[in-house]
Amino acid sequence: MAAPQKQRTTRDAKSLAKSQREISISEFFTKNRHLLGFDSPAKALLTTIKEAVDNSLDACEEAGITPRLLVEIRPDRAAVNLGLELESQSGSAVATATSKTSKNGRSSNGKTNGKGTGPGNKSEERYTVIIEDNGPGIVAAQIPKIFGKLLYGSKFHSLKQSRGQQGIGISAAGMYGQLTTGKPVTVYSRTGDDQPAHRYQIMLDLKKNQPTILTGEETIWEKDHGTRIEIVLTGSYKRGQHSVDNYLMQTSIANPHLHLSYTDPKGQTRVYENSTEDLPVEAKEIKPHPYGVELGILARMLKETKCRNLNSFMKEEFCRVGPKTAESLFEAAGLPARKNPKRLVQEDIQKLLEAIEVTKIPAPPTDCLSPIGEDLVMAGLTSGVEADFYTSVTRPAAVYRGNPFQIEVGIAFGGNLPGDELARVMRFANRVPLLYQASACAIHKAVLTSSWRNYGVQQSRGALPVAPMVILIHMASVWVPFTSESKEAVAHYPEIIKEMRLALQEAGRRLQRHINRRAREKDALKKQSYIQKYIPHIGEALQEILALTDGDREEVIATLTDTLERSRKL
Amino acid sequence: MAAPQKQRTTRDAKSLAKSQREISISEFFTKNRHLLGFDSPAKALLTTIKEAVDNSLDACEEAGITPRLLVEIRPDRAAVNLGLELESQSGSAVATATSKTSKNGRSSNGKTNGKGTGPGNKSEERYTVIIEDNGPGIVAAQIPKIFGKLLYGSKFHSLKQSRGQQGIGISAAGMYGQLTTGKPVTVYSRTGDDQPAHRYQIMLDLKKNQPTILTGEETIWEKDHGTRIEIVLTGSYKRGQHSVDNYLMQTSIANPHLHLSYTDPKGQTRVYENSTEDLPVEAKEIKPHPYGVELGILARMLKETKCRNLNSFMKEEFCRVGPKTAESLFEAAGLPARKNPKRLVQEDIQKLLEAIEVTKIPAPPTDCLSPIGEDLVMAGLTSGVEADFYTSVTRPAAVYRGNPFQIEVGIAFGGNLPGDELARVMRFANRVPLLYQASACAIHKAVLTSSWRNYGVQQSRGALPVAPMVILIHMASVWVPFTSESKEAVAHYPEIIKEMRLALQEAGRRLQRHINRRAREKDALKKQSYIQKYIPHIGEALQEILALTDGDREEVIATLTDTLERSRKL
Repeated sequence: MAAPQKQRTTRDAKSLAKSQREISISEFFTKNRHLLGFDSPAKALLTTIKEAVDNSLDACEEAGITPRLLVEIRPDRAAVNLGLELESQSGSAVATATSKTSKNGRSSNGKTNGKGTGPGNKSEERYTVIIEDNGPGIVAAQIPKIFGKLLYGSKFHSLKQSRGQQGIGISAAGMYGQLTTGKPVTVYSRTGDDQPAHRYQIMLDLKKNQPTILTGEETIWEKDHGTRIEIVLTGSYKRGQHSVDNYLMQTSIANPHLHLSYTDPKGQTRVYENSTEDLPVEAKEIKPHPYGVELGILARMLKETKCRNLNSFMKEEFCRVGPKTAESLFEAAGLPARKNPKRLVQEDIQKLLEAIEVTKIPAPPTDCLSPIGEDLVMAGLTSGVEADFYTSVTRPAAVYRGNPFQIEVGIAFGGNLPGDELARVMRFANRVPLLYQASACAIHKAVLTSSWRNYGVQQSRGALPVAPMVILIHMASVWVPFTSESKEAVAHYPEIIKEMRLALQEAGRRLQRHINRRAREKDALKKQSYIQKYIPHIGEALQEILALTDGDREEVIATLTDTLERSRKL
Repeated sequence: MAAPQKQRTTRDAKSLAKSQREISISEFFTKNRHLLGFDSPAKALLTTIKEAVDNSLDACEEAGITPRLLVEIRPDRAAVNLGLELESQSGSAVATATSKTSKNGRSSNGKTNGKGTGPGNKSEERYTVIIEDNGPGIVAAQIPKIFGKLLYGSKFHSLKQSRGQQGIGISAAGMYGQLTTGKPVTVYSRTGDDQPAHRYQIMLDLKKNQPTILTGEETIWEKDHGTRIEIVLTGSYKRGQHSVDNYLMQTSIANPHLHLSYTDPKGQTRVYENSTEDLPVEAKEIKPHPYGVELGILARMLKETKCRNLNSFMKEEFCRVGPKTAESLFEAAGLPARKNPKRLVQEDIQKLLEAIEVTKIPAPPTDCLSPIGEDLVMAGLTSGVEADFYTSVTRPAAVYRGNPFQIEVGIAFGGNLPGDELARVMRFANRVPLLYQASACAIHKAVLTSSWRNYGVQQSRGALPVAPMVILIHMASVWVPFTSESKEAVAHYPEIIKEMRLALQEAGRRLQRHINRRAREKDALKKQSYIQKYIPHIGEALQEILALTDGDREEVIATLTDTLERSRKL
């Protein structure tokens, strides 16, 4: 099998060194775009809209503005024309008049072993995606970096519940558009009625991960404040579970304060009215909790702090460290409270860390969280799902790896929901619907591992329950541990799954009461109709035994029927 | 639920702008380390060894050296002592004498709602992980960047089968060690017996993603050439499916040329001898195939090329574009072959891309691949798994998204393997065992969706087959599409799953023949023993019917037995 060594074109350390070089984060994600949720044209379309809507909602809430959003997916006529033009020029026999720019379509061609392949059919097209909000707008100088640079944003370093967290999403969407269509991102933004509006066209320098500004100028825009984004991309518009339509419907359920107008590629517009004018409770930013810190991070914090002694360092850089906690910490660590943080050596840091480990520190504050709330989960479910029983549970806040989080569950049951199918699970993280990778998600696992039979619902081992049921689970946290950058599934932390199961238990018990009541009612109804059926016969039997007149018999029947009626009302 | 708007601490665009800033890739992966395979102490230990071994094997093969590796996991005494010391100082009641530096252990503390929590027990300890090879060594100037900077390497930009591909792995392992123990990575390297050896101690500047060199000097090292890495980290050493032991055993199966000596934390050394001295066939680097290119990438290539006209650009920057293909390409695109690549406008690029789409181009060459080969898959399985039937299949190369790949399958069946359990699936990508995230992997899916009943093997719907069976699947490719940076599962490309299923079918049919033969043999044996049992009775019956003497009867019995014996031998 193997070639003898001497025939090899071997490379020594020097020759290897020549090819070693830096990889920019944009090169990395260009090649690994599936990590960001751009692995198929359908998913790319959804991810783009998701990232833009997330940002709009975050910005509106930060600015205290009730969000009014406009989402539009517009088929790109220019691309269609270009396609047609090319065909007539090249004389090729391709039937579709759509754009042919995507890699994915081509992949279906190259699959035959060792043979060249011709053109194939495609379902994807070129679309212009437009997302417009009435948010605070973006300061002009920041626009290029926010849309033309990966890993740039305001949320990564802050411990506070928000939809976005990494500073990758929207610039990655722009990058995907650029890769597939060569078109820049267009951004309109205005920060107030006393300010001019700006219009930018931005591309991302793939090699340097830096924005390239094609145009950037003041412009006239009818809005007082807000941001409008236009991205041209190759996508595929589909219906069903993973669709943009479903994502927007679920977003309106989890964000009852959102007013959304959505125009699909066929030009049909659907408006989701907001069911409340009140914004969600504001999430406060918190300092990290000592239980969540690691040696390397602690060392860096000590080095970078502006505090002059350990005492103020611990109190100011962390939450929940009061004078007493600090005192017992320093005692346990054997370190003086007045020591300069920058003077701690490796061994001191280790001691401090071990002291944190053995010291009781209160759990982090929970005002950094903004759950939807039981009433609004209920309202959202009621408006989104037709059923005849609804319930919702918001758990108290809990903590994983030093990060506060809070779980909410809603259940809709019965009505017109299909009874012989698996229950539908709607997953949300910080009010954002999660549509992909269900089976990799902690939410899915929590539902699977709950004992639904206890609540009177059918369930096979290791499967979702079978019932006319929609289960909504929302995780709110300062840091949702997603399994990938595309933020599609929550990682399996035991603390998180436990809280979800507790919430499901509570909701499940209420469901059980409903199901039991229904069963009793049904049972009573059955008995009743049974008796009703036999009342005439009882009348006849009594007539015979007691030799009643026909009138007496009718009276007896009337009395019995009346008694039954009254017992039914009780 | 919601607070009135005026009470909110609202932020306008200017205040938002102040918190917008750049996030370095090292900050990003510090917070998202689960994406790299460092989400638990057990996985971190495995990932660290995996990344180092991958690099060593790649380097040895590139240099044409038969690899001899040394892997050691050494419990860190210093940490244990420090732990003990601290306890006596602080007078705390903690029972364990182990290091207490990890975040994960602490997470189990913080889970009670709204209450402070004390210390908990931990299974993780501090280890020094050592990996030493006899490879070509690393040029001294490159050492800091390779071990102290994420996204730096030689393999990302090259289309060629190799284990590493992203330039993240080993520096991330160093970063994890640094985060959990505060210790630097130590590297020894020597590039030849005429060169001095070097010793470096490197840390990673988390904020800048740059190496910090603590020490770097010439040193004495007994090896002529090679590299030795020492990383101190908090890990958890476990046995079983996801263990380091299992990973190294599987690595030796897929790399029969590897000589490996492995010392576990208990000090026990196990040696995996190489079953061949021959290195694998060398994988050649190839140019990208036109079918794999996208608009954005093509635009960038046109901009950066040194070629002066389109003709040479297409021929030199891509594989499989000869004079004829180029000619029909340019005709379809309506572009002159002599046009300067840098002068193509957006519309021209679009035309060129659409021309590629409609032009037949031969599939990419396959000498960029280096499969294990049927003989060596068989040899590996035979040495690693005790069974009584082995088979292996290496498929011809195929293509997904312009990337060549090749699938190999091996099956071991029977013998001492447990018959009433699910078959064991060993997954490999470019000769690297994949131990985590099986259910997310295309390999798993290919096994699940094959019809094992056709081959005489039990299988429930949607489940792995139940049989005394080990299934090995290897995917070799210039670019394995992993579902995350931690490289644990292959993405579900239909072309890849199809090839796997074809290979499984071929192997399955051979397995079926074996199972049938076995069944026939068993059947014949059963018949035989049945006849054997009745031969004396037949003898007696014949004696009675034909009035034979006792001698005749015995003779008849002997003859019948002899006939039976001979038929058995046939």
